[in-house]
Amino acid sequence: MKSKEKDEKLERIRHSAAHIMAEAVQNLFPDAKFGIGPTIENGFYYDFDLPRPLTPEDLPIIENKMKEIINQDMPFVADELTKDKARKLFAAQPYKLELINEIADDKVTVYRQGSFIDLCRGPHVTSSGEVKAFKLTHIAGAYWRGDEKRPMLQRIYGVAFETQEELDNYLALQAEAAKRDHRKLGKELALFSTHEEIGSGLICWHPKGALIRRIIEDFWKEEHLKRGYDIVYTPHIAKLDLWKTSGHWEFYRDYLFPPMEIEGQQYLLKPMNCLAHILIYKSQLRSYRILPLRYAELGTVYRYERAGVLYGLARVRGFTQDDAHIFCRPDQVEAEVTAVLSLAQFMMSTFGFSEYELLLSTRPDKYAGTISMWEEATESLRRVLEKLNLRYEIDPGEGVFYGPKIDIKLKDALGHFWQGPTIQVDFNLPHRFDVCYIGEDGLERNVVMIHRTVLGSMERFLACLTEHYGGAFPVWLAPVQAVIIPIADRHLDYARKIQSDFQNDGIRVRLDDRPERMNLKIREAQLEKIPFMLVVGDKEAASSSVSLRLRSGENLGLESVAQVKNRIKTAIESKS
Amino acid sequence: MKSKEKDEKLERIRHSAAHIMAEAVQNLFPDAKFGIGPTIENGFYYDFDLPRPLTPEDLPIIENKMKEIINQDMPFVADELTKDKARKLFAAQPYKLELINEIADDKVTVYRQGSFIDLCRGPHVTSSGEVKAFKLTHIAGAYWRGDEKRPMLQRIYGVAFETQEELDNYLALQAEAAKRDHRKLGKELALFSTHEEIGSGLICWHPKGALIRRIIEDFWKEEHLKRGYDIVYTPHIAKLDLWKTSGHWEFYRDYLFPPMEIEGQQYLLKPMNCLAHILIYKSQLRSYRILPLRYAELGTVYRYERAGVLYGLARVRGFTQDDAHIFCRPDQVEAEVTAVLSLAQFMMSTFGFSEYELLLSTRPDKYAGTISMWEEATESLRRVLEKLNLRYEIDPGEGVFYGPKIDIKLKDALGHFWQGPTIQVDFNLPHRFDVCYIGEDGLERNVVMIHRTVLGSMERFLACLTEHYGGAFPVWLAPVQAVIIPIADRHLDYARKIQSDFQNDGIRVRLDDRPERMNLKIREAQLEKIPFMLVVGDKEAASSSVSLRLRSGENLGLESVAQVKNRIKTAIESKS
Repeated sequence: MKSKEKDEKLERIRHSAAHIMAEAVQNLFPDAKFGIGPTIENGFYYDFDLPRPLTPEDLPIIENKMKEIINQDMPFVADELTKDKARKLFAAQPYKLELINEIADDKVTVYRQGSFIDLCRGPHVTSSGEVKAFKLTHIAGAYWRGDEKRPMLQRIYGVAFETQEELDNYLALQAEAAKRDHRKLGKELALFSTHEEIGSGLICWHPKGALIRRIIEDFWKEEHLKRGYDIVYTPHIAKLDLWKTSGHWEFYRDYLFPPMEIEGQQYLLKPMNCLAHILIYKSQLRSYRILPLRYAELGTVYRYERAGVLYGLARVRGFTQDDAHIFCRPDQVEAEVTAVLSLAQFMMSTFGFSEYELLLSTRPDKYAGTISMWEEATESLRRVLEKLNLRYEIDPGEGVFYGPKIDIKLKDALGHFWQGPTIQVDFNLPHRFDVCYIGEDGLERNVVMIHRTVLGSMERFLACLTEHYGGAFPVWLAPVQAVIIPIADRHLDYARKIQSDFQNDGIRVRLDDRPERMNLKIREAQLEKIPFMLVVGDKEAASSSVSLRLRSGENLGLESVAQVKNRIKTAIESKS
Repeated sequence: MKSKEKDEKLERIRHSAAHIMAEAVQNLFPDAKFGIGPTIENGFYYDFDLPRPLTPEDLPIIENKMKEIINQDMPFVADELTKDKARKLFAAQPYKLELINEIADDKVTVYRQGSFIDLCRGPHVTSSGEVKAFKLTHIAGAYWRGDEKRPMLQRIYGVAFETQEELDNYLALQAEAAKRDHRKLGKELALFSTHEEIGSGLICWHPKGALIRRIIEDFWKEEHLKRGYDIVYTPHIAKLDLWKTSGHWEFYRDYLFPPMEIEGQQYLLKPMNCLAHILIYKSQLRSYRILPLRYAELGTVYRYERAGVLYGLARVRGFTQDDAHIFCRPDQVEAEVTAVLSLAQFMMSTFGFSEYELLLSTRPDKYAGTISMWEEATESLRRVLEKLNLRYEIDPGEGVFYGPKIDIKLKDALGHFWQGPTIQVDFNLPHRFDVCYIGEDGLERNVVMIHRTVLGSMERFLACLTEHYGGAFPVWLAPVQAVIIPIADRHLDYARKIQSDFQNDGIRVRLDDRPERMNLKIREAQLEKIPFMLVVGDKEAASSSVSLRLRSGENLGLESVAQVKNRIKTAIESKS
């Protein structure tokens, strides 16, 4: 079946499931008043005004009633009525009456199955038996028409698919996603926290999360230095006027924190790192010979997002970009963009992402600069993508105000996409700030700036990594790489010897010397997702070995200390 | 001679030099009107109202006139006059008249030497010949009585000592200090900049300064992890209420940036890192068994300082503290303070500071907590200092509002003192924020917090390092460790081989392949204070060697490539 046909069929199934759910609710609550019942991604919902609040225990009862209706295989029948007739039909349904009164047409459509009739444009399945695989998932409150001055209705959500297998797969994936939710794992693994006392969207990195971040940052810095970048540090505030010159104040104001006034000057918390990099560049005359200059900064920026859209580490108000700005000649743009793409690919593969999508975002409605600047910049990005034979989609109007960009979306282990590297070509800021180099002919010319990140932000990247690996980070990133579990107190000395041996070799090893049972220690180490568990008892001590277990539960049996150390070091070095 | 007597003698010499300078000016400008002429550190000044602006060329002329007066060895003679008589004597001197009118007493003292008479309490030297060693240093404008609505006078500054040798030493030290000024070297060596467009006291770290900072930070992190610290990251803003609870808003408000309002909540740019560390600590119940916990952060904080007091990297508005907070039981305080002192000593000696002063700062006028808390905390610091046999001075009333502290002042190569490590014991914030642990008896008790830095801030520490080393940073910190200088183009291949060999070994080496003369390249490398210069020509290429020069100018002659590499690596590893 073609994708569009399949989509239409699923739409009919889900919409019909909503009606069947409404019929079931009507059976259970004859006085129910009905709101609306549309389809949504993967399923449907319906809003009800009921004589009592629903509890999760109601859902299986409603499901069973729905199954009865489905088993009866009742046909869905459409009818067209005048509005007058419809008003009589829905006389006891105030929400439906409100909807009827708002319909401009003189006629309205209704759909009936079994004892239930609904104001509805359709389409639906032919009969209820076609709804083969569904599940009610949860209940929520919802104001009628989203208006907090109108009554609060009860909304029941459900999912539906064509086959039970598809439903089961979906539910299994959802369960896995819930287990991998970085907000949940972030707490369980003590990676980070947010605090009402500090404010929403502002992250405190706990020791283990910070350790992962530090390893990523160290790796990132080393790789950037190798590739000819310079690292810089710049302040988190700057005078507002700078952001007026740049255009950020004009184009971006809704996302800025309000200015602070000091000695008659307004200062702004920086939403981007580019302007200070421009000033560093401009602190000297620069010759065409020394270009490109590449300034990289792990720069923490602050942007205002409404409290409602904040989400764990993935959408926050303060985040550290792995930012860089490349100042180059126009003839260097394509080589630089190519090099950034190569660095981005290297980073993605190092962190275990093999699938991704590329988007080329073009000029938005609100933009700075001239159309010809935009076209030139967009063309240079397109040429690189074509030359490298990379598949990409156009994302129309999604460029930044100062230039077009290539965005890369990383696909995680569950198939979710995450905003990853971004590469933006900018002919505008060099113009606005008069960012020049001395050409071979001795004349000043504007540089081209490339704004880029390869991880995005440390916050979102940790969210993505956590969900991709379900918290079982690769050994080189694992906060604790190995735990030594002595079976009895008399094995402590041997355990300590291994601990100090491993520590001297730079392995992050912990000795679990608590007076607890071995099995509990193993279970807890597994929950903590520690890659290697080294159990040591009499046999192991006698043979300079350990019993090796993996966090997957796999038991590798006796292995010599030297072998295990080698195995761990190999895993660290290979970053696998 | 005892120090006090010497001080009094110097005071008389400097004060007399001011009078002699005034006499010289009177000789040169008979219409001069005289302001005041006090002593200052190392010297003196006098304010004059003159018919024309002075230029630096006037100073030697005035100096010569002063020498004439000194050679005449004119006695200083005191006299007491009624105010009426004094008014007649100074009838042509409006500034003196103003001063006379403000004297409460009916009598005033005057001092006369040669043709000059001044309103003055003395004391002075017996005769002008006693002023043996002086120098006029510079001219500045100064409003009469510091009031910008009064006339602007011309101030001449001078220095004076007992002997020419002391003066020469002082001037040499001043010249050396000027050469080592971190603001001057910061620009010459491209370490950092500030920008009017960003705002005063906000530092942009350029690639070379940032490289030094990164090495220091990496070393710092490694050393802290070794010593049982955890590294964390926390946001740069937090809700104002948090700073009200802590007392910072009450005690520290004048040094805070103004709050920003978002969604009805006030947020503050953080002036300190402690509060977020407290919240991380409080995110779990903590048992007495797991204490101490040590949270370290390279945390950038922002404090408002008046524009007038800002100074290079040494006094700024935004700076990164090498901060940590230790949460411990009361019985652990002394061991922890001892360990911090040991870490501080290790850091100071690693960075080449062998001399320092310790201060124990006690309860200030505005303080939080109870007197008994303060006494307990102060006593614990004192006990540690005594136990370690460390010499310290009491700095009365200079503690932070939440507790007493030990401050260490580093002495640099020129004898200037720099604020270095600080260790603060705090019984107050744990109380205000209810920061507890579960004791052995199952009851909750307040922890003690130790706030500490061992470098102070990255900004001030770079200022101090730069002046201590005069920009010739130790090899492990030098942005460029070695430069290869080929004598002719035909030596480029050989030079490149050495370059890539050294790079593979992690040495920061640059190849100077510009079409310039060797001598110019050597001179520029010396100005850039690159530790090792490797000159390569025919002889060197034939013998797998280089001609090695040091930045000191020392020429070590031919040395094999392997030897030079070893020499550089040894210098890096030894951090010397």
